[in-house]
Amino acid sequence: MPEQNLNDLRNDTPGAATRLHLDNAGSALMPRPVIERMEKQLKLEAETGGYVGQERTAAEMDGVYMSLAALFGGKTADYALTSGAVDAWTRLFYSVPFEPGDNLVTGYNEYCANYVAYLHQAERRGIEIRVAPPGANGELDVAALESLVDARTRLISLVHVPSSSGQVNPVAAVGKVARAKGVPFLLDAAQSAGHVPVNVDEIGCDMMIGTARKFLRGPRGVGFLYVKPEMRRRLELAFVTNNSAWVATDRFALRDDARAFEAWERNVVAVLGFGAALGYFRDHGPAELMARALGLADRLRSGLASLPGVTMTCPPGAYGAIVTFRKEGHDPAAVKALLEAEGIAVNVASVAHTRIDLEARGVDTTLRASPHYYLSEEDIDRFVERIGAL
Amino acid sequence: MPEQNLNDLRNDTPGAATRLHLDNAGSALMPRPVIERMEKQLKLEAETGGYVGQERTAAEMDGVYMSLAALFGGKTADYALTSGAVDAWTRLFYSVPFEPGDNLVTGYNEYCANYVAYLHQAERRGIEIRVAPPGANGELDVAALESLVDARTRLISLVHVPSSSGQVNPVAAVGKVARAKGVPFLLDAAQSAGHVPVNVDEIGCDMMIGTARKFLRGPRGVGFLYVKPEMRRRLELAFVTNNSAWVATDRFALRDDARAFEAWERNVVAVLGFGAALGYFRDHGPAELMARALGLADRLRSGLASLPGVTMTCPPGAYGAIVTFRKEGHDPAAVKALLEAEGIAVNVASVAHTRIDLEARGVDTTLRASPHYYLSEEDIDRFVERIGAL
Repeated sequence: MPEQNLNDLRNDTPGAATRLHLDNAGSALMPRPVIERMEKQLKLEAETGGYVGQERTAAEMDGVYMSLAALFGGKTADYALTSGAVDAWTRLFYSVPFEPGDNLVTGYNEYCANYVAYLHQAERRGIEIRVAPPGANGELDVAALESLVDARTRLISLVHVPSSSGQVNPVAAVGKVARAKGVPFLLDAAQSAGHVPVNVDEIGCDMMIGTARKFLRGPRGVGFLYVKPEMRRRLELAFVTNNSAWVATDRFALRDDARAFEAWERNVVAVLGFGAALGYFRDHGPAELMARALGLADRLRSGLASLPGVTMTCPPGAYGAIVTFRKEGHDPAAVKALLEAEGIAVNVASVAHTRIDLEARGVDTTLRASPHYYLSEEDIDRFVERIGAL
Repeated sequence: MPEQNLNDLRNDTPGAATRLHLDNAGSALMPRPVIERMEKQLKLEAETGGYVGQERTAAEMDGVYMSLAALFGGKTADYALTSGAVDAWTRLFYSVPFEPGDNLVTGYNEYCANYVAYLHQAERRGIEIRVAPPGANGELDVAALESLVDARTRLISLVHVPSSSGQVNPVAAVGKVARAKGVPFLLDAAQSAGHVPVNVDEIGCDMMIGTARKFLRGPRGVGFLYVKPEMRRRLELAFVTNNSAWVATDRFALRDDARAFEAWERNVVAVLGFGAALGYFRDHGPAELMARALGLADRLRSGLASLPGVTMTCPPGAYGAIVTFRKEGHDPAAVKALLEAEGIAVNVASVAHTRIDLEARGVDTTLRASPHYYLSEEDIDRFVERIGAL
């Protein structure tokens, strides 16, 4: 990336001047256009109230759905907005009509919020959870996953990138299995969208969810879901909301698009901020931005791996912008607090987040550093040096 | 209220200087401390990212739950925050363990979002919906409601104030029935909290929901729920989220408080804005503020009723700060648009919002003007005059 472009990206990021932000997998630093869009809408709401504020920005709101389809594939009508990734995922997952004896297939690096819902449905609906293991190279074993699918498999449900490593699951290969077997595929792209290419048509998933606040650099409290029309008709909506119309005393009508899964109420300020984040991502060249994020992750990974006393806790082959590691003799939570006091943000991944993977590898907690494209090579090197000096 | 206090309330409300806001039942004008709190947090998030922003305001976030309990009764641990009123209501209602043949009892002025969920559960779980009618005075007939309750009644579910009239349901009397019969009572206080007293202990409800953006003058996209511990144990959580812990590969653990119903993710900016709104309400004397809102509603109601060609569409006895009416020869939606262009915000209530009540009274759409305490008597009189001049 040319020096000038990088400078622009940094200058667009108020937080980059004073902080070293390596928690983009938690909540990224928002670029200025996102912040300014929200400040402006907040002012409008203060003057006119939230309803008039929404009416006056209706076309821009429609544009958010269009941006989602333009960036991630599928059609505009197949997207709905939610109050977060888990909210989006819940609305889809709990609408899958499981019967006792059915099973679902997932992966060894599944996220806690999803897995507790599997356990909940196992308990409540009597379904079986089947977990595909990693292969010899540490990557999700797609052949093993395929062998777990049978006539009673109602769903393949998988994270794209787990929350505690830079592993990128081979989701297009899983999509092929899902299509070949005729089994619905729900993809959790919360940790991938914005730094790893996500296209629902190319991946071949039937449902997908994501969040605004991570690598897409939008605000807290906004998520989105994608559901194919054919899939929508196979789901039984877990709960109806006021996006459904009360058409006669004894009858309601669902919307005939993905927004049947959406609540009418939303934080308009945040949704417009998310729209600005999607626009920013699109306008600056997603392919180039993502390549830069992955390049910085690579630099970070090699830098840390070369330090004495550092153990990398990402599986081999991990290349996403989530780098996990431990430093001998240092408790991850204590390091996080120490660095926070110096203006460096990292996070701690725990076995409670991706239990199956981390238990198998004997990791209880581990430091998580997640760079993004607006950081500089010097930022990465400074961080590696700081860890070395601990 | 002393002149000076009223001036302070108006001066605290940026929108009151330029607009005549009569859609507080939709989304109120926020007072300055709410807006400033949100602007400040947005700045912090821009600098540090949303996670650090949340960590630094954790104590203030806890204070939001404490404020809810202080204002509406019950204990702090019995409250959870949601992304809106419907979200809150959904999390409770869909957790009621209905069996085929069970029934629920509701009222004739129930809100659409709730009623479509009743129809949904009627279809899916085979429950019966029983609707208590108004009595001779137009108010919900509590004796009739009581007669609908039988051994198969799993829930009494009622709005406090409907969305299309200033009717205030006699919820404490309903609470007595619920307690006497041992039937859970879910109260929807979205349209009442902030202008009609709401206290869960005095009302005797087991569950309650509300929203930030209406008469409590908070932001969009925030709601809350209350659930008694004894009630919580009778519910079967409709869906678990990442507020539940993945404690072993095959086991999850729910939180032992109302926040088991909560999503971990939230728009922190908006939640802190809501906290500021609750603080503002508490600090300015809720009883006095609510009395003023009801007094202005009374002035508005009498003023409009005295105009030739105006038909009031609130039932007799309605005294809440939601005043509905029609002007002969004028389409409500057209009047709304006309007034909006003049900086006057009203709304249109439709039969689709409270179908049973409005169908029975032959009202298809009607104008809705909802004043609040920060308006002046002159504002009200100016509005009445404007309607007269249509």
